Amino acid sequence: MSTNPGGGTRLDPWFGSYAGRTHGLRVSETRALFAVASRPEVVSLAGGMPFLDALPMDLIAKVTADLLATQGDVALQYGNGQGHPLLRGHIVEVMAAEAIQAHPDDVVVTTGSQQALDLVTRVFVDPGDVILAEAPSYVGALSVFKSYQAWVEHVPMDDDGLIPEALRQTVARLTGEGRRIKFLYTCPTFHNPAGVTLPVDRRAEVLDICQREGILLVEDNPYGMLGFDGQITPAIRSMDEDGVIYLGSFSKTLAPGYRTGWAAAPHAVREKLVLASEAAILCPSHASQLSIAAYLEHCDWRGQIEAYRGVYRERCQTMLASLKEFMPECSWTTPQGGFYTWVTVPEGVNTKTMLPRATTALVAYVSGTAFYADDQGSRQMRLSFCYPTSERIREGVRRLSGVLAKEIELAALFGQTAASGAAPSHGSAADVTNPAPDVA
Amino acid sequence: MSTNPGGGTRLDPWFGSYAGRTHGLRVSETRALFAVASRPEVVSLAGGMPFLDALPMDLIAKVTADLLATQGDVALQYGNGQGHPLLRGHIVEVMAAEAIQAHPDDVVVTTGSQQALDLVTRVFVDPGDVILAEAPSYVGALSVFKSYQAWVEHVPMDDDGLIPEALRQTVARLTGEGRRIKFLYTCPTFHNPAGVTLPVDRRAEVLDICQREGILLVEDNPYGMLGFDGQITPAIRSMDEDGVIYLGSFSKTLAPGYRTGWAAAPHAVREKLVLASEAAILCPSHASQLSIAAYLEHCDWRGQIEAYRGVYRERCQTMLASLKEFMPECSWTTPQGGFYTWVTVPEGVNTKTMLPRATTALVAYVSGTAFYADDQGSRQMRLSFCYPTSERIREGVRRLSGVLAKEIELAALFGQTAASGAAPSHGSAADVTNPAPDVA
Repeated sequence: MSTNPGGGTRLDPWFGSYAGRTHGLRVSETRALFAVASRPEVVSLAGGMPFLDALPMDLIAKVTADLLATQGDVALQYGNGQGHPLLRGHIVEVMAAEAIQAHPDDVVVTTGSQQALDLVTRVFVDPGDVILAEAPSYVGALSVFKSYQAWVEHVPMDDDGLIPEALRQTVARLTGEGRRIKFLYTCPTFHNPAGVTLPVDRRAEVLDICQREGILLVEDNPYGMLGFDGQITPAIRSMDEDGVIYLGSFSKTLAPGYRTGWAAAPHAVREKLVLASEAAILCPSHASQLSIAAYLEHCDWRGQIEAYRGVYRERCQTMLASLKEFMPECSWTTPQGGFYTWVTVPEGVNTKTMLPRATTALVAYVSGTAFYADDQGSRQMRLSFCYPTSERIREGVRRLSGVLAKEIELAALFGQTAASGAAPSHGSAADVTNPAPDVA
Repeated sequence: MSTNPGGGTRLDPWFGSYAGRTHGLRVSETRALFAVASRPEVVSLAGGMPFLDALPMDLIAKVTADLLATQGDVALQYGNGQGHPLLRGHIVEVMAAEAIQAHPDDVVVTTGSQQALDLVTRVFVDPGDVILAEAPSYVGALSVFKSYQAWVEHVPMDDDGLIPEALRQTVARLTGEGRRIKFLYTCPTFHNPAGVTLPVDRRAEVLDICQREGILLVEDNPYGMLGFDGQITPAIRSMDEDGVIYLGSFSKTLAPGYRTGWAAAPHAVREKLVLASEAAILCPSHASQLSIAAYLEHCDWRGQIEAYRGVYRERCQTMLASLKEFMPECSWTTPQGGFYTWVTVPEGVNTKTMLPRATTALVAYVSGTAFYADDQGSRQMRLSFCYPTSERIREGVRRLSGVLAKEIELAALFGQTAASGAAPSHGSAADVTNPAPDVA
């Protein structure tokens, strides 16, 4: 009897009733990490949780209480599907910091930017349609794309992000095959998981390719304000308002517990997103939206982002120094902001099969395989420096280096298969597989 | 040039890129009512907004502030996709009041019960699959079903709700035609919009039909605790835990601004719902969930529901007395709880074409047509008594009676077509039409 929660069992009386899209749902590689990461003895370099101890909680408590006491009948009532105009106005101000000129009418508030991703995919993607995505890509985006039975085609990156020439070739090949490309999904700034940033000239080039080919560009930018040097690269959306859907979030600049993000979209698309969102959730939470508006009005949000930047800059430095000290046999990216670095381990080591041994050694990361819709990533891992203190980061990398040393030894002794052979058998390879060809 | 936001225009550069499901999205009949209802001079008998002035806002402000000040790092952090165990425990207690025996593991917390409806449909429905629904049905459910290109088959009701014999016949006909019925969607208690309640013996009979035919039953129960006499009819879920997905909500018993509802589902289905929800929103809001948990722990939530009941009982009495006084030529249902009564106007009057004239006369309602996926409902309207005071309700019905009198006069003079001919032409008939036959 299978216990794979994604696959279903004959004991499930509704097994024959599920929709086609449901058969592709699998437990993500990152879900189990929540449980692991919450154990205090484990150093988690896995999650993307912001360091909320940096927030002025007493002040937030006060402005929230004032909001509820004076406008509780509005804050706790239904709202409109597009989001509260007050918050949409603030969002326009926030985006202006990234050189985006937008109007509150362009903005759709969502339940985290994850819902914005869901809505964009829902509105555009029929089963088998192609979505272009960086190699690697955000695991949550891949989950959404799979849930709509999209075909994800990865486009290679280097230390400067997406490679325009590779994009050009991929598009040419796919259009030559008569495939329908619905959009390019990209995280150009402080990429999750790769930690790299697309320079301005490449932004223009990537946008130009999309414009010429009539491909919509979906720009996911949760980390853009978190550059260590305080410099902000202009968003791709600042260069084109008709060809780009921009996704933003308060999860990293304020806090994820409000589940509040947004999409800024071309007019006609925006209207579709609102209709789709009304069907999905009626309206985003007024309580969250107005709490955030109150925070933006009464707290020094720019100063808070500066404080976050300082914390993450220091932790990133520690991470990179620890990698240099303990894991010189690996290579890694050098982030200028955000939460992550992307590490490549020596040949013969498989980061996915190594993970159970790492957690046994009380350190956690995310295997590179989680960030691909195909079979890449087994020599990579994402290490995050956002949540643990610098001391813990150094200790985590030290522990990881011990696990890695044993893996390298094993690989040298028995060859690559020995390390790979220990893979857990519970179907997790399917987590990162594109839909079966019959829907493509 | 068309300005229909659902249909798109040739000026939309992405017009050719949308998914098949997107072409069915239309502005709902109820959306414009938010704008109308917010004008203070209009008496809105349209919306389903709870009367939040009845809430102890100062106390809620205090417990929320305490939560943020003492556990802000948890309340504002990411959570797990199924929902916080603390709140799921409280939800089990709440459901126990409706005779439901459940375990916190059975519960999936969602962004309002609307998202639960979305997830259930996403997990079960392929384009063209049949969903059985009462005639009439909740407009938001119809929006979801349409967005997944389902075929909605209405089953007649009487003053005791869904008619079991009609259900039997509909199922027999559809299965005879080889159609695939995915589930029965029902709101058995204080029905939205009909205001009626399915008695216990009918619940057993409806469940029995579903069990025999292998049809999943989706029980939507946002109003179940709001019976005017304080009596609670046992939920259908209390009779079968493997064949029923129960949808609950805090929107009516506490407040909708938190956007927090839930599904209680059979084990295997629950796992699918969690996976689908993780793809859609990652996780429900910790801020909302823990605020509600704090409210349930520190405030007298049972007493609050009792207070709500008293308010709505009085307003319902006023509504029914006003209908008797001002609109004796109509018939209506007599709710024992909830927010709505369902009014049938004299032959020759069209509630949809009457609506613009009603709003001109400063009273609003929802046309019956909004609650059908086919062309029924033009002689019905939903009147809600939840939000305006008794005085305003009486004034609203008085205004409505004036509008109705003129419509009756017009219908007598020129026949039914005169009244119907004034229908607004901007495509709204399509709002309540099932998907085109090519997907069915």
